[in-house]
Amino acid sequence: MSVFTAAADQSLCAPLPVLGKDVTVPLVTGGEVAYAALDYAASAPALQRVWDDVAAYAPYYGSVHRGAGYLSQLSTDLFENSRATVAEFLGCRADDQVVFTRSTTDSLNLLAAVVPADCQVFVYETEHHASLLPWRDARVTYLNAPRTPAQAVETLERALADREPHGPALVCVTGASNVTGELWPVKELAAAAHAHGARIVLDAAQLAPHHPVDVAELDVDWVAFSGHKLYAPFGSGVLAGRADWLQQAEPYLAGGGASRKVARRTDGGVDVEWHSTAARHEAGSPNVIGVYSIASACKALTEAGFDGLVAREQHLVSTVRAGLAGIPEVKVLSLFGDDAPRVGVISFVVEGWNSSHFAAALSAEYGIGVRDGLFCAHPLVRTLLGSDPQEVGECGAPEAGPGEGSLNAIRVSFGAGTPDEHIERFVRAVKELVSKGARWKYRTEDGRCVPDRGAGQR
Amino acid sequence: MSVFTAAADQSLCAPLPVLGKDVTVPLVTGGEVAYAALDYAASAPALQRVWDDVAAYAPYYGSVHRGAGYLSQLSTDLFENSRATVAEFLGCRADDQVVFTRSTTDSLNLLAAVVPADCQVFVYETEHHASLLPWRDARVTYLNAPRTPAQAVETLERALADREPHGPALVCVTGASNVTGELWPVKELAAAAHAHGARIVLDAAQLAPHHPVDVAELDVDWVAFSGHKLYAPFGSGVLAGRADWLQQAEPYLAGGGASRKVARRTDGGVDVEWHSTAARHEAGSPNVIGVYSIASACKALTEAGFDGLVAREQHLVSTVRAGLAGIPEVKVLSLFGDDAPRVGVISFVVEGWNSSHFAAALSAEYGIGVRDGLFCAHPLVRTLLGSDPQEVGECGAPEAGPGEGSLNAIRVSFGAGTPDEHIERFVRAVKELVSKGARWKYRTEDGRCVPDRGAGQR
Repeated sequence: MSVFTAAADQSLCAPLPVLGKDVTVPLVTGGEVAYAALDYAASAPALQRVWDDVAAYAPYYGSVHRGAGYLSQLSTDLFENSRATVAEFLGCRADDQVVFTRSTTDSLNLLAAVVPADCQVFVYETEHHASLLPWRDARVTYLNAPRTPAQAVETLERALADREPHGPALVCVTGASNVTGELWPVKELAAAAHAHGARIVLDAAQLAPHHPVDVAELDVDWVAFSGHKLYAPFGSGVLAGRADWLQQAEPYLAGGGASRKVARRTDGGVDVEWHSTAARHEAGSPNVIGVYSIASACKALTEAGFDGLVAREQHLVSTVRAGLAGIPEVKVLSLFGDDAPRVGVISFVVEGWNSSHFAAALSAEYGIGVRDGLFCAHPLVRTLLGSDPQEVGECGAPEAGPGEGSLNAIRVSFGAGTPDEHIERFVRAVKELVSKGARWKYRTEDGRCVPDRGAGQR
Repeated sequence: MSVFTAAADQSLCAPLPVLGKDVTVPLVTGGEVAYAALDYAASAPALQRVWDDVAAYAPYYGSVHRGAGYLSQLSTDLFENSRATVAEFLGCRADDQVVFTRSTTDSLNLLAAVVPADCQVFVYETEHHASLLPWRDARVTYLNAPRTPAQAVETLERALADREPHGPALVCVTGASNVTGELWPVKELAAAAHAHGARIVLDAAQLAPHHPVDVAELDVDWVAFSGHKLYAPFGSGVLAGRADWLQQAEPYLAGGGASRKVARRTDGGVDVEWHSTAARHEAGSPNVIGVYSIASACKALTEAGFDGLVAREQHLVSTVRAGLAGIPEVKVLSLFGDDAPRVGVISFVVEGWNSSHFAAALSAEYGIGVRDGLFCAHPLVRTLLGSDPQEVGECGAPEAGPGEGSLNAIRVSFGAGTPDEHIERFVRAVKELVSKGARWKYRTEDGRCVPDRGAGQR
């Protein structure tokens, strides 16, 4: 994994055009403002090019793998070519399989369904719930949060060496934290896993949109990511990697498309012969628009030049971090420290503020969309906040009233479509809110934090 | 279930505008022709209105359930309002839950994952593989193909009465066959199931696009359908019905969104508290565009007037059936006989023809897209063809060379977007092919049946 460097004098490319860049939203203080979408880590806007590709294809939509008509053949080609595009984007090995799923969560649940029965799973407590929770039938070892990348490798090596019995094992690790944006030492962890006879899956949900992923170079066994974080929010995701476990297991979904042959037996039962390609785990009519949108995004990012996108995003990261560093009341959450390389995902708390109210004020008074909460990574956020791990709250919902302090965090995240103005407005807004306070009061209604119009302006 | 009636003098509504209606495709015989999409049973084109709704929403796309920003709030409202729209469209009971999935296949796999451990499942061998195959952990009884609706009810009653032990049971039945289009006696089967202490799920994949479905009136426990057959091909489906089994079971997917609280235990493990709403089975970021497109389609069909759409489709069914009835070489496949009510899904074989070549000729010489194969319902098609049930072939792929006769069938299917001209062209094309033969030779290449350009015209 490279450490990002962006020379100060480097000429930075423009943001890629995205849907919604001209959307304005009302402010509680009056008037409207261009919406600043700074919640890319939850879901990124569609690239304009992805939308254009989908719109150009939509009239030609037809049943995939299933029809004799011209549009069915065209759609089938589009679908299978998309698989090849994704394989190339990910730097897959020749014999890897690309399975289309609905999301990273779905991809990791699929992998959990195909691990051998005696497989032990090793996962850091710092992972997103999508990586933390799917391993229900396997014996799972949760690894404590490391405080340096080197400690992450040491922790894993010790756990793998100590495992009993010394059978099949799988390590699941994120490429970039969905809370801190910090990069994990994926290549080193893959080497450690393989040295101890284990396999490794890379959760690239937060990495793939921000940085090239090369499966062969990282030497990971599988990689998972979501279209909706990669500027292609049309309901598809990817699991790509080693075919053997995928093809030795029962299909993830049972149904048409996964089955080659089905016949009644003379004893009344049913014999099924399943496909041994990616189709084995793709039962039902494929989401061809979703899949094509991912391929379109892969092409768009590659052709735009990932190096330039990375440089530009690192410039924005620096702007946010420098801005927040100048506000003593703001504490940025970090596992690996200030020098750790990271993508455009930054979480923080503000002293004396309820995070939900702070996020609501950013939205209502500045037209800035961020996220507050525990980010579907409860143990990690609790560790970083230093709060009692039992004091966990609803995913995404505010947990405390005004003035009760921060049990949640605030996350700002951005990417290839983010203009400088959004970042500058965000930094300015945080400074103003901290120094002058919010102009309105906020209250929780139906689980949402909203301006308290009854109370009016402060 | 009503029997369809369409008075001959009834003034019929126009087809609903769909994407692709102006697409032209090349003919092997030269020139281009407007594409006749007659494979609705596999996947229907998007309604223009659905597309327009998606296009209007796309710039406002934001993370659902997860963000503090304006577009996240708007998207969350859109998502949850879509749930309410679907519940209304299906005539759900007040305490039913609507879970968004990726497709009917996914919906039935979800239900299979939540049936009680001691549940017995009863399914007719005539079902689509999506209904036939997901019940892997349950004890499944496959019911023989009935030849009348009344026999279907009798067969079920006997099987349920005879079951040992007399514990929890689930019946899975289609509303309209994906092969013959024939309607199944859903209300009577539901009554029989309940009389014998069983529950019933309706596979409405082929029914919902063609006929109103009323869960409460039919008294089914669950209903499943796909967006992509309901003019909303954006990767979402629905399972709606009783909450109890859904909420008593482990989540279908484990991850964020399904989990309310997650915390490390002092013994190193992890405690999880799952949601008890539909979110329990919707882990990962929801496919809000897919879900919204389904709601849009539900509204469009309701507002267009389902009665008029049904009458128009029945007129098209009559045209196809009358046309095919006049061709002695054509045999229409039917389980329940000529008088059975049916939707716009009709399968047939042509004496002396390989079905794949016939379908290829319809495409290459007439610009008509149908499907040939076994339609992911191998046992049913084999029963209807009277062929050895072991002689099954790949789903969707041609199985025999030219002149080897028909081991597959051909399916023509249509719906709310189909103009009369497509149906008239289809009937004329079948007549011409049967009487004059194809103008080109066809061969199988990469699993597809294509014009043999080397051999040239006949």
